[in-house]
Order: sequence, then structure tokens, then C-alpha cells
Amino acid sequence: MSGYFITFEGPDGAGKTTIINEIMKTFPSQVKYPVIVTREPGGSKISEAIRDIILDPNNKEMDDRTEALLYAAQRGQHVNEVIKPALKANKIIFSDRYIDSSLAYQGVGRDLGIKEVKAINDFATNNLNPDLTLFFDIDPAEGLARIKKLRPDAEDRLEQERLAFHEKVYQGYQELLKQYPERIKVVDASASITDVVAQSVKIIRKQLPEIFK
Amino acid sequence: MSGYFITFEGPDGAGKTTIINEIMKTFPSQVKYPVIVTREPGGSKISEAIRDIILDPNNKEMDDRTEALLYAAQRGQHVNEVIKPALKANKIIFSDRYIDSSLAYQGVGRDLGIKEVKAINDFATNNLNPDLTLFFDIDPAEGLARIKKLRPDAEDRLEQERLAFHEKVYQGYQELLKQYPERIKVVDASASITDVVAQSVKIIRKQLPEIFK
Repeated sequence: MSGYFITFEGPDGAGKTTIINEIMKTFPSQVKYPVIVTREPGGSKISEAIRDIILDPNNKEMDDRTEALLYAAQRGQHVNEVIKPALKANKIIFSDRYIDSSLAYQGVGRDLGIKEVKAINDFATNNLNPDLTLFFDIDPAEGLARIKKLRPDAEDRLEQERLAFHEKVYQGYQELLKQYPERIKVVDASASITDVVAQSVKIIRKQLPEIFK
Repeated sequence: MSGYFITFEGPDGAGKTTIINEIMKTFPSQVKYPVIVTREPGGSKISEAIRDIILDPNNKEMDDRTEALLYAAQRGQHVNEVIKPALKANKIIFSDRYIDSSLAYQGVGRDLGIKEVKAINDFATNNLNPDLTLFFDIDPAEGLARIKKLRPDAEDRLEQERLAFHEKVYQGYQELLKQYPERIKVVDASASITDVVAQSVKIIRKQLPEIFK
């Protein structure tokens, strides 16, 4: 496979989706390959159906292990239907969340263990890892405040978790930064949108210069 | 946990559901503990929602790994919400399918490997294994013929698989019989309903004499 797989990670409210949309206004004209944007949980019909179960605020009785397995299940489908075909077609793929989210949210946030959750995800994806991951660094309390302002009445089941959960998730990401320093690069997501976009493109250019025109 | 967990396994069309219903007409009065019947995929609200995705004949593009993970996900929920609470309450649980179905259908039928699929399921269930498993032995072609006769227009996504798939699943069960001879006992499911019920109760009585009055 010869495309490029770039993932965007970070706490809820870090602004990943907004920034990806902003990057997409100028990025495709700067690179040699077509760029597609996808997201998790979701990215295909079956994955979106699984997403609905995961995020439904009514599913309060969901077991932590079930949650981790559902994330892995939608990821396997996403890889098989969307990511691998795009990589084979020499495309650049931006994914709004991927494996690291499960390692941070379920592995650390839910106390299931990074190693245990990674094993399930390696099975799901047949060991497909990103070429580059941008970690959008923001204080979890600040991220949650952004979410509440943006979507005061429409938080999903994970966003509804208490601050203590989101702080554990943040610590999980810090652990991943230590484990994968070559792959995961930090973006200061507390800056202005223009600045976050500039930081992101600069990192991509530095790490993957060969994709630019 | 002090209840008893008994699972019913076998190819599609082996008659598990019918036999469990028949056994339930007389079995509860013979034993010391309350008996509950449950099934997989399903057994709880979230598990049934996952079941709908797994079995939907429209989901033809489902990745094999996603399928295996969805089965494990519903199983984790089923264990946590239904099976463990019943075991803690000293009940006898009959489950129409459990882990062995995933090992046979996904591990062998889908070529994902018994070991790999077992690892995911051990994670899902926190290593909860049945006390006793009845394998309803029937030729897979005969099983499929029964299904077509019973539900000519309503086969689910798995039942719709070709005979070659169901023959592999059957070989998977044979492998499990070799691996777990103490736990899995064979019932000749080609016999009459009365006879299959009698064989089943005889095996339960022999393996778990302490549960009977």
C-alpha cells in the first residue's frame, strides 16, 4: 500500500473536526495525491450503525469491555471498507480519531489496559498503523467547556463522562506520546484556529515532505 | 459465583432452541435452583441492538474481523448484564450459543483462527467459561435443510452462507470437542425431539448431579 495515513487525536473539544475542515480548504492543492477525510467511530454504513450504539446516551448500562470491542469492530470495518482501499489508490487519508483514541479512552480512561486494548485493535485492523498522528493538546477541562458551549444539549455518552474520566484519558494520551514519539506529534490546540492549522501543516510537511508538490 | 452455566451449541438447524423450550417444560421442577434461558447473539437491550447489525442480511460487506468483534461485544454485555448476575443469584443459566459458536463460526468458518478469536472472547467475558456445554450434533446439510423448511424466506446473514462454510463450522466444533472433552458433551440431534430432550437431561444429570433434587 502506498498512500499516507494521518490521524488526528486529542481530548473531546480539542477542535479536531474544525481544524481538519480548515486544513482541507488549502491542503489538497499543496500535495501530490488526492486527500480524503474520514472519522471514527464511523466512516462506513456498518461502522455508523455501530457508532449509534456506542454513543447513544440511553445506553448507560454499557459494559466497558463491550464499549472497547464495539470501537474495535467499527474500526475493522472502517479499515477494510475505507482506509485500505484509499491507501491502495495512493490517497492521503485524514482520520478524525483512530486506534490511539481507544488506547486512551478505553485502555486508560476505562482502566482496561493499553496493552489489552491494543491487542484487540491489532486484531481488528490487521496491524494497520498511521504514518503520522497529530495530538491536539488541550486541557481536558477547557475541552469539555468548549463542548458544552458548542453543543449544550447534545453531548454523546462519552462526552457526558465526568471531568475525572477525561483527565484520565488525557494521561493516557501522555503515555502514548512517550511510547510512540516518532509517530505522534503534539499540536498546541489552545491557540487560534489559524495558528493550529499552521502548526498542523508544518508538522505534516516536516514528517512527510515527500507528499508535497 | 455459585450458579451453574450450561451452554447449547451446534450447527444452524440442530434444533437447540426447540429442545431448550422442551427441556424447560419439565426441567425446572427437577432441580434445586431457578432456571433462566437466554440466547446469543442477544440477551440484553444493547446485545440485541448488536445482534441486529450482525444478522442483517443487508450487511453483506461486513468484514470477518468486525463480525468476530461484534459477537464478542454482545457477549461481554450479555455476561455482565445477564449471566454474571444470575450466577451470583445461584441460578442455573441455559444459553442458546456462547463462546464456542464464535470459535467455530469465526475462528474456523471465517479462518480467523480459534486462538485469535478465543483471545478476544476471553477479554470480552473476563474468562467466564461454561460449566457444561451440550453439542447438538447434526450433519450441516441436514441442519440447513431444516432451516430452509422452517424459515424459507427469513434466513439471517449467517444462515445464508453456503454449505461449504457450514461444513467448516462443523469441523470447528469437532476441533473444540477434542480440545475440551471434559466440558463439551455430544447429543445426537438427528433423533426425535423426545429422545434429544432425554439425552440432554441425562448428560446434565451425569455431569452436574448436585443441581438435582
